[in-house]
Amino acid sequence: MKIINEDLATLKQLIQTKTQQLTDEKVVTAVQVIIANVIKNGDQALQDYEKQFDQVTIDQFKLDQATIDAAYDNLDADVKAALLLAKRNITSFHEKEKATGFIDAEQPGVLRGQKLLPLNRVGLYVPGGTAAYPSTILMSALPAKIAGVNEVIMVTPPQKDGINPAVLAAAKIAGVDAIYQVGGAQAIAALAYGTASIPQVDKIIGPGNVFVATAKKQVFGQVAIDMVAGPSEIGIIADDSANPRELAADLLSQAEHDKLARPILITDSSRLAQAVSDNVDSQLKVLPRTEIATASVNNKGFIAVVDQVTDMFELMNTVAPEHLEIQLENPTQYLNLIKNAGSVFLGRYASEPLGDYVAGPNHILPTSGTARFSSPLGVYDFVKRTSFIQYTAPALAKEAKAITTLARVEGLEGHARAIEARFDTYYD
Amino acid sequence: MKIINEDLATLKQLIQTKTQQLTDEKVVTAVQVIIANVIKNGDQALQDYEKQFDQVTIDQFKLDQATIDAAYDNLDADVKAALLLAKRNITSFHEKEKATGFIDAEQPGVLRGQKLLPLNRVGLYVPGGTAAYPSTILMSALPAKIAGVNEVIMVTPPQKDGINPAVLAAAKIAGVDAIYQVGGAQAIAALAYGTASIPQVDKIIGPGNVFVATAKKQVFGQVAIDMVAGPSEIGIIADDSANPRELAADLLSQAEHDKLARPILITDSSRLAQAVSDNVDSQLKVLPRTEIATASVNNKGFIAVVDQVTDMFELMNTVAPEHLEIQLENPTQYLNLIKNAGSVFLGRYASEPLGDYVAGPNHILPTSGTARFSSPLGVYDFVKRTSFIQYTAPALAKEAKAITTLARVEGLEGHARAIEARFDTYYD
Repeated sequence: MKIINEDLATLKQLIQTKTQQLTDEKVVTAVQVIIANVIKNGDQALQDYEKQFDQVTIDQFKLDQATIDAAYDNLDADVKAALLLAKRNITSFHEKEKATGFIDAEQPGVLRGQKLLPLNRVGLYVPGGTAAYPSTILMSALPAKIAGVNEVIMVTPPQKDGINPAVLAAAKIAGVDAIYQVGGAQAIAALAYGTASIPQVDKIIGPGNVFVATAKKQVFGQVAIDMVAGPSEIGIIADDSANPRELAADLLSQAEHDKLARPILITDSSRLAQAVSDNVDSQLKVLPRTEIATASVNNKGFIAVVDQVTDMFELMNTVAPEHLEIQLENPTQYLNLIKNAGSVFLGRYASEPLGDYVAGPNHILPTSGTARFSSPLGVYDFVKRTSFIQYTAPALAKEAKAITTLARVEGLEGHARAIEARFDTYYD
Repeated sequence: MKIINEDLATLKQLIQTKTQQLTDEKVVTAVQVIIANVIKNGDQALQDYEKQFDQVTIDQFKLDQATIDAAYDNLDADVKAALLLAKRNITSFHEKEKATGFIDAEQPGVLRGQKLLPLNRVGLYVPGGTAAYPSTILMSALPAKIAGVNEVIMVTPPQKDGINPAVLAAAKIAGVDAIYQVGGAQAIAALAYGTASIPQVDKIIGPGNVFVATAKKQVFGQVAIDMVAGPSEIGIIADDSANPRELAADLLSQAEHDKLARPILITDSSRLAQAVSDNVDSQLKVLPRTEIATASVNNKGFIAVVDQVTDMFELMNTVAPEHLEIQLENPTQYLNLIKNAGSVFLGRYASEPLGDYVAGPNHILPTSGTARFSSPLGVYDFVKRTSFIQYTAPALAKEAKAITTLARVEGLEGHARAIEARFDTYYD
């Protein structure tokens, strides 16, 4: 694994690339046609597309409960225990994310406040094949349920051999209310606009291929969507006290996800840098997903050696990694130096896969540097707020002149007259 | 104004239209070119576009402080007092929206938590000419400042006669840190990627024309953006006790914004329906913005008469209006029936323009039915969350089997090995 020795300014510049996101016109047009067809022809359009794209004839989109129950009943006992442990920890963590509204009655005659409500119905897109992760179903459905969402539904492309039973069992454990066998842009269109079989949702979450991502962008506004996810990162900040074999294993746990994943180590120890690099190279040789991980390490990974602890954090804040491990002694004392990170792993035993599976904080995190401005998926993503006010006549009278003054400065005479109508100064 | 008497199901169907949002390919391509040019040529590209689009030569994008101070010093005393009242009320309301992180140390050897941080820098787009509202500058900059955003900057198209002094004064009152004279898609590109003159931001908020809106969509992911705003609505729920002249004035206060604005009254009183309709028609004749308001009322507005109070709320929840007035006796008792609304105005003296200007809740609200899933602009829009975990060796050992089991079910051997590396069972 590549080791870079440069000054801090040069290193920061290496990280800050300006990449324009370009759209593929052909995909955009194809997706527009699919959405229009689903709006117009509903279930028939979905059936046609499933035949065309997935070579499957679907008579009934909604998966029957017996299939789901059987998957759950036949689930390997260790896997079931692991999913139930994960559910327990995810639930206890996310319960703490619940927020409430407020009332403000501090001014005479004025009542102001805000109430929070859960979204009514949420749609979860689950990719087909090996990209369908049971753990991700828990991480997305449980926060919605904790927020109080009335109905969490799931769509997933039909598979010739049936949908992965571990996915079905995870959906049952997470409390998913219904599963529909439909995928691609047509599934996103169905969730956004509704069909006879598939109800319209208020928000769509979950990853997918370029057609799914493009469809999500196109229906944004009709429904809410989650952040468009890019490649994953792990950033590790470590000093000479860290264990190189463990660090190498953690870097590879992200590298094995995707050829574009970015494994990054920043350290003030040249000795550790070399030792981790050697360990990555040797562990890579015996990793099952070695082709993916090798591409990630060689093309996207690097180890940077800097002078001091504050430099490590300054540089890592420029990366704004999805996952950040702090492998220093007394790691909690550095929390204040972290400005941009999705999820932070403190100390030797907070290995990143712990957070992927069972610790409880969400593993759906801001990727590709978006931790600069966005957050892990949470209960707060499934609620909306409504503000309210009530004024007495004297309270309104006290502020009437300010309102009519501003309305007229902005050229909105009708706004001023609506206030004056309350006080019989209305001109007509 | 049109009165509709239909059963509830028919009325709901009239409201729920399925409209596909189509993009204009020419605009998309033009904006892509502009963004690419700004990334490559920075300030020079901005200067070229300002000359081309706004016929203005800009030597220095950043507006000098003396111009801003002069606008503030020369501001009409009534306008200044009104803006300061608005600032006071906006601040006291939004202070209540502040959230904190949490720590969870309930399991032995396990520390979990979440911390909240403000975004570092936010960019506010302010349209030129008459669409630049001083009130909107307070509503967008103040919540960012209350959230703790380090730097709030503003971009606005240069004007031949100089930028509206009321806008500059409002920016000073709101604590905006810098104002740059640049508009259109090029301004959005500059905020997203940064140039020598204009610093890169983490989030862009504010409305604009189709080029601005398209540019915001294209840079989404590089930076965060706010919701793409559509036409405004006012929904009024009223019974026979309401005052028709006041209701008509409130409906027109939204209608005067935009030909596509939707003024809607739902009532159980045919008498009130007719009286409001008559009042709207007569008030329209003497309204300065009568052309805009008439188009809105005739093409987008309606009065629906239903049988009972619960029907009014059911139908209005389908509309999901940006603004909702409850003109019933004891209006607070109906808060529980409101499922979808941006901002709620309770009773006779909570006329909608009160919320536009001085009451304190934000006036940047979810439009076009998006109150189904989104919220008023708030302090929560300017923070991000980072979760963290720390485990002792025994705590990790207790959950190790669950982690390695799930990792292997998902085909991610590297994840399992990262955990096992901690316990010397690692295979190589």
